[in-house]
Amino acid sequence: MNKLHYAVIGSGGIGGFYGGFLAKAGKQVDFLFHSDYEHVVQHGLQIDSPLGDFHLPQVSAFHSTQDMPPCDVILVGLKTTNNHLLKTLLPPLLKPETLVILIQNGFGLEEDLLKEFPSLNLAAGLAFICSQKSSDGHITHLDYGKLTLAAYNQLAEPIVARVAEDMRQAGLEVEHAPDLASARWKKLVWNVPFNGSTVVLDTTTKQLVDNPDTYQLMYDLMKEVMTGANACGIKYPIEESFIQAMLEMTKKMTPYSPSMKLDYDNHRPMEIDYIYTRPLQTAQQAGVDMKKIAMLEKLLRFKAIGTVK
Amino acid sequence: MNKLHYAVIGSGGIGGFYGGFLAKAGKQVDFLFHSDYEHVVQHGLQIDSPLGDFHLPQVSAFHSTQDMPPCDVILVGLKTTNNHLLKTLLPPLLKPETLVILIQNGFGLEEDLLKEFPSLNLAAGLAFICSQKSSDGHITHLDYGKLTLAAYNQLAEPIVARVAEDMRQAGLEVEHAPDLASARWKKLVWNVPFNGSTVVLDTTTKQLVDNPDTYQLMYDLMKEVMTGANACGIKYPIEESFIQAMLEMTKKMTPYSPSMKLDYDNHRPMEIDYIYTRPLQTAQQAGVDMKKIAMLEKLLRFKAIGTVK
Repeated sequence: MNKLHYAVIGSGGIGGFYGGFLAKAGKQVDFLFHSDYEHVVQHGLQIDSPLGDFHLPQVSAFHSTQDMPPCDVILVGLKTTNNHLLKTLLPPLLKPETLVILIQNGFGLEEDLLKEFPSLNLAAGLAFICSQKSSDGHITHLDYGKLTLAAYNQLAEPIVARVAEDMRQAGLEVEHAPDLASARWKKLVWNVPFNGSTVVLDTTTKQLVDNPDTYQLMYDLMKEVMTGANACGIKYPIEESFIQAMLEMTKKMTPYSPSMKLDYDNHRPMEIDYIYTRPLQTAQQAGVDMKKIAMLEKLLRFKAIGTVK
Repeated sequence: MNKLHYAVIGSGGIGGFYGGFLAKAGKQVDFLFHSDYEHVVQHGLQIDSPLGDFHLPQVSAFHSTQDMPPCDVILVGLKTTNNHLLKTLLPPLLKPETLVILIQNGFGLEEDLLKEFPSLNLAAGLAFICSQKSSDGHITHLDYGKLTLAAYNQLAEPIVARVAEDMRQAGLEVEHAPDLASARWKKLVWNVPFNGSTVVLDTTTKQLVDNPDTYQLMYDLMKEVMTGANACGIKYPIEESFIQAMLEMTKKMTPYSPSMKLDYDNHRPMEIDYIYTRPLQTAQQAGVDMKKIAMLEKLLRFKAIGTVK
């Protein structure tokens, strides 16, 4: 069996991190860079991480997917607010069996992409990680790093398993989850309360769990995610104990600004659609009105006005 | 029948306004002043109002209720966050029949005061007004002004009627409402959404109703007040048409910072207890979980930390 040939679209804090580790482990990885393409061509890619800092002097860097060869696996590390770009970015990279892994948060992403590419092999990647691009060609990984992979369709399972194995060989912690919808909802248990609340209250995860009123609110929001998810009939229902574990974990985390807070602070669009609106609609269709999440969505829509530079 | 003798406790934007109009109309009104006592003794009280600016050069001003004579009617214009002071402020002013009118927003105020003064004659005053103390001895009335009076107990009805008549003679718009609980809940239909949301989103009433997302949220919050109020079995249930009227009115208002927003911006305590917590508890006892209001309360509790100078 040939080695898998990877491409990374969106080589920032997420895509650059996972792609960088694969490249360091000797896998074949092509990277699409945008603003820092020239920098990476000249200086390579630097990754600082508690797992060990390293530098990749020679990166297979591209500035357009038109110039990239077709590949076996595409890691998408874009913000979901840029997913409309995939329609033009993906085609040059696709072979009949190419697997696209959306390393992105939220719900409904795969369904939307399949409207453009009906026969695409798809998987979700859920990154439990604090990592960001700190400057051109420089990725700073602060904490965590586990990636949960979940195939969208049965056909994708074998290649997802191979990707998981490649990542483990690269020193990463990977879980191959048996059901995509369950995995996506499970990730939302943390993202829904903390992404939005840190924006609305201009604060960190630590302050939210240390204050008894917002601790209760975080619990309530998690409970709504759980109720919505379970009403949708996911294969592996979320349990109360998972909520408690997430809250305990957040108490122990260093004060942290989730990706949506970083986006808001840096005048980038927030991922409201896939983290809030689509889960709300999906739960609604299953008969559950996630009222507090709906309120958080409205508050975020208001916060979003005029904030993008 | 003798003329009613009034006292005003909390002679700011609300108490100073209604007391000032009564004094201007020749009623006997004693005012308790706090920080601006000396100023008022020397310069009198200035009221600027669309109803006509006026100056009261000689005001019956006091610096302590210990020095004030007993009276027939006490207008309380304190913030509810200072209601614990009433225990010591009221006794010198009380005769057996004295009526205390709490010109304050929220729910549960009368019940709390009756714990200290079990036989007190009580009424609610609900002020639909934009008015504030702009400087020492200077009250600036911007818009509206209608006062809704509602007796707490049957015994208080005749004197409430006389107060209403005095106020009308002073040129004020007054409604004598037939049921206190109905009147208090009805006022909350506007206060609950707009007081808290302007604080959490750092905005004005106008922006909240002009944005379709927050317009929907204001509607949802009003609907929760209505559902909670009606479940409590108030005598005059709130109707959907009232919500629509409140939203339409707010659309036509000039951009406005509600009292809670002014309190927050000026590092004063916010009236979260009586505007949010008590209504939530009361509705809960009637079996209604006002979820979005509960969330707003939690967000406000978080906002309140460390903001009071």
